[in-house]
Amino acid sequence: MSLTPAEITYLAEQHLGRLATIQPDGSPQVKPVGFSWNPALGTIDIYGYNMASSQKFRNVSRDGRVAFVVDDIASTDPWRVRFLEVRGTAEAVTATGDDGDASVIRIHPSRVLSIGVESPPGDAHSSQLLTRTIG
Amino acid sequence: MSLTPAEITYLAEQHLGRLATIQPDGSPQVKPVGFSWNPALGTIDIYGYNMASSQKFRNVSRDGRVAFVVDDIASTDPWRVRFLEVRGTAEAVTATGDDGDASVIRIHPSRVLSIGVESPPGDAHSSQLLTRTIG
Repeated sequence: MSLTPAEITYLAEQHLGRLATIQPDGSPQVKPVGFSWNPALGTIDIYGYNMASSQKFRNVSRDGRVAFVVDDIASTDPWRVRFLEVRGTAEAVTATGDDGDASVIRIHPSRVLSIGVESPPGDAHSSQLLTRTIG
Repeated sequence: MSLTPAEITYLAEQHLGRLATIQPDGSPQVKPVGFSWNPALGTIDIYGYNMASSQKFRNVSRDGRVAFVVDDIASTDPWRVRFLEVRGTAEAVTATGDDGDASVIRIHPSRVLSIGVESPPGDAHSSQLLTRTIG
């Protein structure tokens, strides 16, 4: 299992993620995306309307290095932001479904960074940056 | 003025942005960040705790190419996500304030991409991708 149970639970609670990919000139781009945890493969699958024709899909086809983040504001007083960032290598998977394009970007996590995901809000460790390398 | 009034209003309504920067090896990283529009300079200023010692600050010092996005879910039925992505060149500005480190990452916009920001939800054009190059 590449992500921990707490990380998988946190992913399931969030509705939007943001995916950063590398443009042809080496600069970054970042977009809000829908996503789901794929328990069979241990991957994060990114989906979206007209995925196969999107710039991010073409970027991943050329350079699979991506960073993906989900976050939320756990508290405004004191100001506390929780997040889970997953870096890794992504595949651009072309697929057709009943409704047309069903292509996905499939992220294989290699590094995970988080704050506030493993510990409940208010816990002494909930503002600590945790980092982990996978595989 | 680099951003439009509707874009500036949208920025002011959002509490978190996500900043993508380039790591030393050319791969992306992405983090949730606090931000404000700087009307005097026409820049987006990114702030945060211990900014000067953060990886994103070091990344920007070395390679100023960044992408920044704010977004929200305008409607869940039908599913409509609005977003404003700003790409550009950022400066890593070291500063000290009364409370210690007051360094900022200052983004000079060069390209803006948005959906649903210029048109009200429900408008026929509100799901159209708008792109603009600045300067």
